[in-house]
Amino acid sequence: MLRSCAPRLRTLGALRGLTGGARPAVGDAGPALLIPQGFSANGVTGSIRLEIPSIRDWTESWSKEIRLLFDQFMKKCEDGSWKRVPSYRYISPQDSKPTKEEGQMSRARIFSRSYDDGLGFEFVMFHNDVEKRTVCFFQGGPHLQGPSGLLHGGALATMIDVTGGVTAVMTGEFVMTANLNINFKRPIPLGSVIVINSQIDKVEGRKFFVSCDVQSVDEKTLYSNATGLFISLDPEKK
Amino acid sequence: MLRSCAPRLRTLGALRGLTGGARPAVGDAGPALLIPQGFSANGVTGSIRLEIPSIRDWTESWSKEIRLLFDQFMKKCEDGSWKRVPSYRYISPQDSKPTKEEGQMSRARIFSRSYDDGLGFEFVMFHNDVEKRTVCFFQGGPHLQGPSGLLHGGALATMIDVTGGVTAVMTGEFVMTANLNINFKRPIPLGSVIVINSQIDKVEGRKFFVSCDVQSVDEKTLYSNATGLFISLDPEKK
Repeated sequence: MLRSCAPRLRTLGALRGLTGGARPAVGDAGPALLIPQGFSANGVTGSIRLEIPSIRDWTESWSKEIRLLFDQFMKKCEDGSWKRVPSYRYISPQDSKPTKEEGQMSRARIFSRSYDDGLGFEFVMFHNDVEKRTVCFFQGGPHLQGPSGLLHGGALATMIDVTGGVTAVMTGEFVMTANLNINFKRPIPLGSVIVINSQIDKVEGRKFFVSCDVQSVDEKTLYSNATGLFISLDPEKK
Repeated sequence: MLRSCAPRLRTLGALRGLTGGARPAVGDAGPALLIPQGFSANGVTGSIRLEIPSIRDWTESWSKEIRLLFDQFMKKCEDGSWKRVPSYRYISPQDSKPTKEEGQMSRARIFSRSYDDGLGFEFVMFHNDVEKRTVCFFQGGPHLQGPSGLLHGGALATMIDVTGGVTAVMTGEFVMTANLNINFKRPIPLGSVIVINSQIDKVEGRKFFVSCDVQSVDEKTLYSNATGLFISLDPEKK
């Protein structure tokens, strides 16, 4: 299993190359994300080239609320205490040769970034190294509907997985999710902005124990809380 | 919270109107799914009209493997022991008046059916009333990628939520998800067919305790197991 996840490791590891500075322009063209020419997953081998048409951390579809939060945290980045977590601005040197996949796999996209602007997972994350915590501002688009007018539980689970995973990855480890335990406490209106706070509670060998809570921007409503167990794939760790 | 979920209740309750019979034709046009003209979710009120362009339980993008499983279970439906769970062929009488939403909400889609054919959540479910269990055949499309070449954990969590929820709903109750506890044991190759088995382990008042396992078609690989707690929203239950 460890070997089969090696490509992910390189991809997640790229998150360590944090970006700060100015807000990206709308439609700012990012580079292609090229991931493994040869990977192995449960005996399946292949390769995928992902063309990333734009940086998706900022779109016209963002509400005023999430833009304000974005601006607030970009200011916090100025003294280095917080850093914006990039989404896909990365080409791994070993993965930089383009490859051509046939069929459906040529259309592969990272799930949390697979929708056109404004329709799906709109989010940005910031990380605080000292506090070992990550905050994610998330605005669920109209294609993430569960019950009518409400965010689907699976979409929330996805964002908890992503935010928790990033929190562990930001320690410098390559990780994979081993467990998610999520309490859904209140329904989340579709299109509203929510705040996912994630922190590392404990590290035991290769195990990173992470907790998350999901709140409204005014912190008056706790929508969900969760724990996650992420496993380092460093073969030298026990 | 109960009141805010009433629209979901009507939608999920529609699943009880099971379909059997012939496989739907590719591109078979289904009716629009109209959901609430007036709903309330945490103080947010609004309405959404969903146009469902086609029945998505069968597409050209399905692999031979999932088509064979589909055919096998359609045969099992002939004696009534199993029934195919419909996806969206429903218009609630109270929700049948079309409404017009402005902006993003006019583009609302059910998350698990929000992708174009072949790209996202391709699945079909069958339910056995006597055994109180549901089986879901799921082929994750290329837009559900997590680590390169692998299914995203959030996409799997979504399908576990949907399958577990359906298992509880099929008892005739309206439910919402209160907890999901998911162990990710092995990575799932993107595009492969997996089998999600879900059953009700226990019912205590309004609480439905459901368990799921996620396996390869040959049952040799256990990818994940999970438990779910679903709460009946019947106000007369304690």
